[in-house]
Amino acid sequence: MCYNKDGEVKMAIIDGKELRKKKLEELKERIKGTKKQLGLAVVQVGHDEASNVYIKQKEKLALELGYYFIHKNFEENVTQEELIKELNILNNDDKVDGIIVQMPLPHHLDASVIQNTISPLKDVDGLTYVNAGKLIQNVDGLVPCTPKGIIDLLDEHEIALEGTNVVVIGRSILVGKPIANLLVNRNATVVLCHSKTKNIAEITKNADIIIVAVGKKHYLTADMVKKDAVVIDVGINRENGKLYGDADFDNLKDICSYITPVPGGVGPMTVYELMNNVHLAYTLRKKK
Amino acid sequence: MCYNKDGEVKMAIIDGKELRKKKLEELKERIKGTKKQLGLAVVQVGHDEASNVYIKQKEKLALELGYYFIHKNFEENVTQEELIKELNILNNDDKVDGIIVQMPLPHHLDASVIQNTISPLKDVDGLTYVNAGKLIQNVDGLVPCTPKGIIDLLDEHEIALEGTNVVVIGRSILVGKPIANLLVNRNATVVLCHSKTKNIAEITKNADIIIVAVGKKHYLTADMVKKDAVVIDVGINRENGKLYGDADFDNLKDICSYITPVPGGVGPMTVYELMNNVHLAYTLRKKK
Repeated sequence: MCYNKDGEVKMAIIDGKELRKKKLEELKERIKGTKKQLGLAVVQVGHDEASNVYIKQKEKLALELGYYFIHKNFEENVTQEELIKELNILNNDDKVDGIIVQMPLPHHLDASVIQNTISPLKDVDGLTYVNAGKLIQNVDGLVPCTPKGIIDLLDEHEIALEGTNVVVIGRSILVGKPIANLLVNRNATVVLCHSKTKNIAEITKNADIIIVAVGKKHYLTADMVKKDAVVIDVGINRENGKLYGDADFDNLKDICSYITPVPGGVGPMTVYELMNNVHLAYTLRKKK
Repeated sequence: MCYNKDGEVKMAIIDGKELRKKKLEELKERIKGTKKQLGLAVVQVGHDEASNVYIKQKEKLALELGYYFIHKNFEENVTQEELIKELNILNNDDKVDGIIVQMPLPHHLDASVIQNTISPLKDVDGLTYVNAGKLIQNVDGLVPCTPKGIIDLLDEHEIALEGTNVVVIGRSILVGKPIANLLVNRNATVVLCHSKTKNIAEITKNADIIIVAVGKKHYLTADMVKKDAVVIDVGINRENGKLYGDADFDNLKDICSYITPVPGGVGPMTVYELMNNVHLAYTLRKKK
């Protein structure tokens, strides 16, 4: 438990499940205002166990929201041409507002080419070059879901971003790089750290907000964080059937002013943000 | 004058004119290997005095290199549709390998829409969403000229980038953001600072390399820089007919291990990089 400057008790643990619930209610209201049934298409190659689980989660929430949902599952040996043909059909299908290609793809397929076949207007993972470029240029577009979830968690708790020093650890195109850009666009000063960064603890110790997305259990330890910092933990590390974050939650929770738990922090927001992106994609496409 | 760890004198001042000369000779050799005359088209709206000077510089170097050069100059009242039509003609003209729209444009034109009408394969300013997205995703594409010039200057002096702490001051889409991305792709740890950054001197004092692009005469002062840091000055500030950089050169040159002067540092590299991008655009387009 933490206290603010006036000695009042602050709720230190950010509850992603609670915010997801609230945001879903708001989304349901927004959906009522749309003139058509929203549609999401998921393209999968092969039968990867983890992918199956993720797709089921997406399907469940999509159906709960009343979305039209298509799951196109290709065999492992599908050719790039077949996949591109299918994506072009979905690009031109007015029932479909959002398209995602479930990663990973088999090695004989060029993930970049396939991802960039998706129309930027239906790219609800925000991974096409066009949407990545819009993000860096601070132009409205579709933004990856996990970074958007992080921003929503920070905003919900009225954590100021402008003028703060933020450290992002991890430079993936799905999390680290887009969240760094979103935060720069929100007037934070951002340090993007990664595996080649030296003296990382010296950098994190100066941070008001730390976003850790490295995929290593309890990578961020208490000695790396200054008092009252905010820690956002994007890690999902499985060990003996249990989930662990990238942050050493138990030892950090009394130092931080806010921290996200794993599970129950950033994770629950991601599928909500995907559904929200489907709605946003629809509104962006109708403006065209 | 500076000394390295062994007490040897190091050349502290980075000479952009000299490197430009060397790089131009290398480019001339590369051009000999191309099967066609390279072509650059510059589209200008109105008759802005500074734009005229920049275009003349580009034309001069293009002709020196034997490029085909077209300058399309529209009146101030040209419509967006006319401009888009012209850009599409240039996109489809095989004689043209690179296209730039000279900024600024009059307010009745949407600069984003016009810039993004240029085919990403001919976008030698590297400003389309597609090329900005490729840069952040570390995929080969066309990169803005000034950031490329900075990388060439650093590489020429064998200034290590991997694992260094770099501070970039200024977050423009033409300089600050792309150089930050290029440096992250080269395994530097990058802090992107801007007008909302607090305590900037504390941040710059920890930097191994500082890149300053804020457009304020002598913004970066000696007390903001640690000994033996590298300072790259992108500023071009005119005062009473004289040019000044963003760095207080006279007081910094004895502290830094390397520093670029203004004029004669980053500036001379930029037009060379444009000509190099025309060649690169040709090779990328031929691969398609």
